[in-house]
Amino acid sequence: MKISIAGASGYTGIELLRGLLPYKEVEVVQITSRQYEGKYLEDVFPHFSSTKYAELKFDSEIDPECADLYFLCLPHQPSLHLVKELIDKGKKVIDLSAAYRIKELTRYPEFYGFEHSYPDLLEKAVYGLPEIFRDQIKEVSLVANPGCYPTATLLALYPAVKENVVSSEKVIVNALSGISGAGRSLKQQFHYPEAFGDAYAYNPVKHRHIPEMEDVVQRFSGKKIGIRFTPHILPVSRGMISTVVFETSLNKSQLEELYRLEYRYEPFIRIQSSPPHIKNVVGSNYCDIYVDYDEKNKLAVVISAIDNLGKGASLQALQNLNLMTGLPEDKYIKELSENSILFP
Amino acid sequence: MKISIAGASGYTGIELLRGLLPYKEVEVVQITSRQYEGKYLEDVFPHFSSTKYAELKFDSEIDPECADLYFLCLPHQPSLHLVKELIDKGKKVIDLSAAYRIKELTRYPEFYGFEHSYPDLLEKAVYGLPEIFRDQIKEVSLVANPGCYPTATLLALYPAVKENVVSSEKVIVNALSGISGAGRSLKQQFHYPEAFGDAYAYNPVKHRHIPEMEDVVQRFSGKKIGIRFTPHILPVSRGMISTVVFETSLNKSQLEELYRLEYRYEPFIRIQSSPPHIKNVVGSNYCDIYVDYDEKNKLAVVISAIDNLGKGASLQALQNLNLMTGLPEDKYIKELSENSILFP
Amino acid sequence: MKISIAGASGYTGIELLRGLLPYKEVEVVQITSRQYEGKYLEDVFPHFSSTKYAELKFDSEIDPECADLYFLCLPHQPSLHLVKELIDKGKKVIDLSAAYRIKELTRYPEFYGFEHSYPDLLEKAVYGLPEIFRDQIKEVSLVANPGCYPTATLLALYPAVKENVVSSEKVIVNALSGISGAGRSLKQQFHYPEAFGDAYAYNPVKHRHIPEMEDVVQRFSGKKIGIRFTPHILPVSRGMISTVVFETSLNKSQLEELYRLEYRYEPFIRIQSSPPHIKNVVGSNYCDIYVDYDEKNKLAVVISAIDNLGKGASLQALQNLNLMTGLPEDKYIKELSENSILFP
Amino acid sequence: MKISIAGASGYTGIELLRGLLPYKEVEVVQITSRQYEGKYLEDVFPHFSSTKYAELKFDSEIDPECADLYFLCLPHQPSLHLVKELIDKGKKVIDLSAAYRIKELTRYPEFYGFEHSYPDLLEKAVYGLPEIFRDQIKEVSLVANPGCYPTATLLALYPAVKENVVSSEKVIVNALSGISGAGRSLKQQFHYPEAFGDAYAYNPVKHRHIPEMEDVVQRFSGKKIGIRFTPHILPVSRGMISTVVFETSLNKSQLEELYRLEYRYEPFIRIQSSPPHIKNVVGSNYCDIYVDYDEKNKLAVVISAIDNLGKGASLQALQNLNLMTGLPEDKYIKELSENSILFP
Repeated sequence: MKISIAGASGYTGIELLRGLLPYKEVEVVQITSRQYEGKYLEDVFPHFSSTKYAELKFDSEIDPECADLYFLCLPHQPSLHLVKELIDKGKKVIDLSAAYRIKELTRYPEFYGFEHSYPDLLEKAVYGLPEIFRDQIKEVSLVANPGCYPTATLLALYPAVKENVVSSEKVIVNALSGISGAGRSLKQQFHYPEAFGDAYAYNPVKHRHIPEMEDVVQRFSGKKIGIRFTPHILPVSRGMISTVVFETSLNKSQLEELYRLEYRYEPFIRIQSSPPHIKNVVGSNYCDIYVDYDEKNKLAVVISAIDNLGKGASLQALQNLNLMTGLPEDKYIKELSENSILFP
Repeated sequence: MKISIAGASGYTGIELLRGLLPYKEVEVVQITSRQYEGKYLEDVFPHFSSTKYAELKFDSEIDPECADLYFLCLPHQPSLHLVKELIDKGKKVIDLSAAYRIKELTRYPEFYGFEHSYPDLLEKAVYGLPEIFRDQIKEVSLVANPGCYPTATLLALYPAVKENVVSSEKVIVNALSGISGAGRSLKQQFHYPEAFGDAYAYNPVKHRHIPEMEDVVQRFSGKKIGIRFTPHILPVSRGMISTVVFETSLNKSQLEELYRLEYRYEPFIRIQSSPPHIKNVVGSNYCDIYVDYDEKNKLAVVISAIDNLGKGASLQALQNLNLMTGLPEDKYIKELSENSILFP
Repeated sequence: MKISIAGASGYTGIELLRGLLPYKEVEVVQITSRQYEGKYLEDVFPHFSSTKYAELKFDSEIDPECADLYFLCLPHQPSLHLVKELIDKGKKVIDLSAAYRIKELTRYPEFYGFEHSYPDLLEKAVYGLPEIFRDQIKEVSLVANPGCYPTATLLALYPAVKENVVSSEKVIVNALSGISGAGRSLKQQFHYPEAFGDAYAYNPVKHRHIPEMEDVVQRFSGKKIGIRFTPHILPVSRGMISTVVFETSLNKSQLEELYRLEYRYEPFIRIQSSPPHIKNVVGSNYCDIYVDYDEKNKLAVVISAIDNLGKGASLQALQNLNLMTGLPEDKYIKELSENSILFP
Repeated sequence: MKISIAGASGYTGIELLRGLLPYKEVEVVQITSRQYEGKYLEDVFPHFSSTKYAELKFDSEIDPECADLYFLCLPHQPSLHLVKELIDKGKKVIDLSAAYRIKELTRYPEFYGFEHSYPDLLEKAVYGLPEIFRDQIKEVSLVANPGCYPTATLLALYPAVKENVVSSEKVIVNALSGISGAGRSLKQQFHYPEAFGDAYAYNPVKHRHIPEMEDVVQRFSGKKIGIRFTPHILPVSRGMISTVVFETSLNKSQLEELYRLEYRYEPFIRIQSSPPHIKNVVGSNYCDIYVDYDEKNKLAVVISAIDNLGKGASLQALQNLNLMTGLPEDKYIKELSENSILFP
């Protein structure tokens, strides 16, 4: 099986390449990057210098014929159209942009500044969170790979919402993200001397990931739940925490039981007995979850941790690749995950 | 005026010494530390080697006669008794432990593991948050200097609670703290290689600062408000963010107006027009506050930032010193604050 | 006395503003920045929001009439010409670029890519390292403020070279620098996620600061000493270490005595009894120096630490300001230095 | 093949466990740790919770019968005696302490504070740097696994010394190390708030790794070369740079050719065309090397980068395991290395 990665020099693209190194059934035949056109992978990223992909050369544009499956690591709008073109040619696509994540059309102009041109195709796209949409992912040609904040937050919410034990109409979410989540493009606030030793909330009332989360909750549960979401910048490269608070009538042991039961066969979810550390998931496709209950205030507190580039982006995309191509779901990525978590 | 600092080799003690360097009206006559007994300050902390306190020597025990005012940077229980002894001798005391912060006696055995032996003295102690208790601080001999989380959180809550515009019975607080907040004692999880690149929630349902916050809210407002408080560890030395969410019927501009009005004469509160960065307050006694409103969910979002060792501990203690001794409230510490905030 | 700062939105410009806050004798009347033209200082840098310079507005271009003394924080070539213009108008100038640091004309095209157009003016400029050129600085209108690596390295070398105890013709220098030394302009390698957790040598055989160091050594000692200089990037914002190795026949106590004697009246040099930590000088104008001797190899090891933006740039520029204007040399900056060193 | 790891809860022990996860031919049957006796691996280190070794239990003492090969991650003196006991029983041992690294007996009391009790066994031990002693490692039962500084430095020196092109009697080495190199035991200077943002040289004239380096140089080259070694602390968890300067008559291209030729078949050495970044080797067994030449001073500058816990300790120990047991030398660890290098 042949693979092409569009936008391969960004952080999600490079992480896909790391994750694809052990694969024997698939071969990366093309990587694209306008910035590095004509350069070898190992010359731009010397840590690949000893690998089988060291001498892949960056192309400027995607070749829609060269591969069977395409990973798109592009901005939302270019992705929107390229997905259409590739699907029309009968290719499989895993789109890491937000272009096909939200079903409600009005959200695109409101949150992303463009009208969605392909409502029919949008209808067919499956949201690539295997713990919720596994069966559909197996059958589909177009997977909209989830954002990092939605992955961490939805996995912390899913069992409770699905089993109908959330008794409030609103859920309060505070999240922390490493800076790689903001991508590889240069910005003053992420210049090292300025970000060093700093932390802060941002976009405190209108982050783009809010409609994505609310849309997915409604899709799997039929419920409209308001998500009060405050993201914060963490001065690390990778890692994400989502701390979710909601009203419930279950107690701590019932809640924990519910989560353990729901996720008991999930290869990449680990229910932990203490609040998760990002350091225990960075480099991996794991989502570590801790469930607690504040008796005095009758509030559940569920905390999840992921690697924003791993389970929050590229390794989850490989989990979707495995599902779409009939490989065992955890093939290669479980071993990669175990191998890559560094302590200390 | 003569000053003694008990427990001067901990982080709050050293920060007091930094803050006291410019003072002309007071003189530090004693510093204590069992660990460094007999050593010169500059030999233990070489960055003091060029200062007027370079050759202060650490004593093992406090001398209750040597000074007019004592800063206690000790564990809660030793502080409990030493405060009593010093007050009985007619000394002024600023206690940086929690021993005299909470009025409700039952909370001590529940959260701190000891019975409070001096309820009469506890009654007289004033909570050293000048923005709320300024007038009382001016009159008293014993100030219980606030904890860092309560300082950041109460300053974010005070105008809204005081003006009675919080319409929920619960307030959701997520906070982030630099590791210096945990003190100077060695712990495995704060060994550099393990804390490097990590972040996580801790004590998610029963942190010691919860009763302190609830107690103070009740004192100034007469209301019982439940505080759902989740603290998180930030991989920096200093800095603290508190993100507070509550129901209200005010809109964004009304809320912001309320906060600007309430704090208009405060020398150390700065209402900002975007979410505050810890880097803009580290080294200072400032509390930067941002007010926002989530219309869809009818929820206020108030975010505050402080230096946990500055406004969250030792520089606030100097603000209290100024109030207790009749100096202008911002004397020395405003200039020190302006001088010490490094960019980048 | 009126001051103008050209290029005030870069790191050295902002650090000058911090350092000038306590000055009573001088007033900053102009700050320039093309990028932020027309904006208030406090809107671009909120940590200035409570200071006397909060409402200074950035101009686009320098006004050569508005001030008595100009700090130039510009690229080398624009500085070259602006210095000439200002000196011709009878103004005093402290130039933080390299345009007037090196006396040997051929080095400019070789290391900086331009011919020096004003050899006469270059002749008159004084290198602004007070520990070596104090008397000349007091008399001159144009000070070429030293680079950070030369400051740290020359202060570690000066007593030994001056007293003629270096017996080798080459000196081996390894240096470490925080990333703020590379300035505020965005570069891929200093994007936070990429610089996080990284360290590396760079420009290992031809760094621009080499001719500056060799030129100054020759000027004060008459000797041609080859400097083998390898700089390394440290993943911090501020701080610099220079580790200097040379042959000598003195032993450890003779060496240390030599350094203590030479620097005994220097207000900003602290000879330490153990290798200096950058954390003990960040925020200050201090240079901490440690002297050791490797008996087996007959090699001196001298290690210095500075803040690259403090003694390595802007606070040293204020030390020069004091000298040029007849203020006590350590006025304001000694207190600022003491106040700003944070522990931890 | 059965494996036991003594001192498995330290950083080198845990790194061995990570590296052994993919091995199919060997099984870890015992891990020891006095501190965690009786606890499950996953309870102490939750990132192992999903792995095949999750439920290994820590024993207090080593069982000298349970395994075929022992990794000793213990302090030097306990290792000294345990090695003897295990070798006498016919076991294979890879000792990560320094107890058997140096052939010259007098160095042990001088640098380590104990007399070496087993000179005969010391004679037989092979220094586990495969690039130099590969053939001997294959034949031996006792491998003294190298220290991290010696690994980085010797690999940067080996081709030049071996081919006799170093024309000076002294070599100047400056090295930078992440803090994990100092181990897992708590120390005040490695408490996170104090090490955060700091860097400094330490042990500037008498580091324990100096005799190890000089001893090995003499063993493979017959030469006595003095090593002037200054180590520095880097504020990261993992990663090490060694910058080596020596006189030579070769030019840059001759030097580079020499290194490329010498290391052309080495699976874990990568000659790079620019100075190596620690980030490109952290998590791996690679040593990246860059060779340059300072024409003016006639000095070679060779810079190497390793992960101090990878090639500098535990992954190199696995390379030795492969050699001692007849597995392909790069088996598992090359794939692990490729998989584990994170960008960004």
